[in-house]
Amino acid sequence: MNKQTLVAQIKSKKSFLCVGLDPDITKIPNHLLGSEDPIFEFNKAIIDATHEYCVSYKPNMAFYEAQGLEGWKSLDKTINYLNEKYPNHFTIADAKRGDIGNTSAMYAKAFLEKMKFDSITVAPYMGSDSVKPFLTVANKWVIVLALTSNEGALDFQFIKGDDHKQLFEHVLETSKNWGSDENMMYVVGATKAESLTDIRKIVPNHFLLVPGVGAQGGSLQEVCKYGFTKDCGLLINASRSILYASSGTDFAEKAAEEAKNMQQEMKGIMKQLNFS
Amino acid sequence: MNKQTLVAQIKSKKSFLCVGLDPDITKIPNHLLGSEDPIFEFNKAIIDATHEYCVSYKPNMAFYEAQGLEGWKSLDKTINYLNEKYPNHFTIADAKRGDIGNTSAMYAKAFLEKMKFDSITVAPYMGSDSVKPFLTVANKWVIVLALTSNEGALDFQFIKGDDHKQLFEHVLETSKNWGSDENMMYVVGATKAESLTDIRKIVPNHFLLVPGVGAQGGSLQEVCKYGFTKDCGLLINASRSILYASSGTDFAEKAAEEAKNMQQEMKGIMKQLNFS
Repeated sequence: MNKQTLVAQIKSKKSFLCVGLDPDITKIPNHLLGSEDPIFEFNKAIIDATHEYCVSYKPNMAFYEAQGLEGWKSLDKTINYLNEKYPNHFTIADAKRGDIGNTSAMYAKAFLEKMKFDSITVAPYMGSDSVKPFLTVANKWVIVLALTSNEGALDFQFIKGDDHKQLFEHVLETSKNWGSDENMMYVVGATKAESLTDIRKIVPNHFLLVPGVGAQGGSLQEVCKYGFTKDCGLLINASRSILYASSGTDFAEKAAEEAKNMQQEMKGIMKQLNFS
Repeated sequence: MNKQTLVAQIKSKKSFLCVGLDPDITKIPNHLLGSEDPIFEFNKAIIDATHEYCVSYKPNMAFYEAQGLEGWKSLDKTINYLNEKYPNHFTIADAKRGDIGNTSAMYAKAFLEKMKFDSITVAPYMGSDSVKPFLTVANKWVIVLALTSNEGALDFQFIKGDDHKQLFEHVLETSKNWGSDENMMYVVGATKAESLTDIRKIVPNHFLLVPGVGAQGGSLQEVCKYGFTKDCGLLINASRSILYASSGTDFAEKAAEEAKNMQQEMKGIMKQLNFS
């Protein structure tokens, strides 16, 4: 998917919501556990219930890998379902991969070509040749970790260089030259919304994938105040708050309500900001 | 596997060689391509031919993922084969994972519990809670990226903080407190052997997993000169130079020769250093 199509989807749906598909087998409603593929059945129900309110889905690889081969089958079915039934949703393989050039090329093949995800998240520690192989596939995106929303983000991402720039700023400044705002995005956690002002000075036009609104406590209003661009420029991810809104037979209905609430808040913000 | 057992294996085999299992389907000998599972057949032949000369095997996840579901089946068969037939070999899931706490816990489950690898490589960018979940499983190891051997290592790993320490030194100093030299190792590329002197000041007793000897040009003698410890403390990885020593029907035989050459060189070094 190219940037123009993504922006058109956001405008048409009045939403920049991404639903994280982190199907934890210990949290999936009991009544699904008897089915042949509980994870896929859960995802399918969540997708069917929320697709109107979001523009993107982000399966988190760890939750599939934890189930071994069965988990990979569920992932395969999920991405095929999305690609066939909802081809206008932007799909993100939340894989946090990244390795030396020939290995990253293999990961690119796995996620962007074989499974046909629109994008993949990548850790920047290994530098240019760990990221560039993902940029060679047309209309596909790499989403580089810049500032994450977890506690451990404080360990290294804020280390100040002798030029007074912090590591995440180095990552943004250096890596933005490897591609463009047409094939690169960044992960920026919502828990540090004020950091978005400085981040927008470095990457004024890149889309940011923002976790941490909801379960991790970030504020949507704050993120938009500091991060919204002329093209929206934000994908706000919510996983647990939507997926596990209810653990009963009404899980999909409750997930839809939760997604709709977020979409309505987004619609309001887009109106305030005259974005249409 | 605990440290004592690993060191005993090294002493008994006079080898600290790790064979990287990166089965590239485009490089596997033609005569294997007709079999039901060429990747597993290739791995099995390589393992059977080299096991005497090495103490560790390191499947690189990307090469399996690139084959989709079939690739995961090959991986599953490979790790099961190793665990059953060669339980004294230290197994490394070269996965470069790492994510927020609940997600890293899922990866730990996938690789250390479900697939029963002895260890997994992890990228440090997301900090403590991305690494610690891998340290909760007894006798399992996390291998954190410190200084990699690729070109892109220069992009961020050498950034000097205002305390004059470089990023990879920060990673070593901070992360070594998350576990101990009984459950943590570090990836340190052989292409910068002289850096090992400074690294050994920070982590005098940790095992280092060293890629970049052979195909990437590092010298075994140099690495040992600066990195060898009282417990050996080194696992030297070689992948392509062994796997693809021949592309003919003699590939396993040639792989064994290559592995034996490295083992003999290691044996010589261990003798020089009075390590027995």
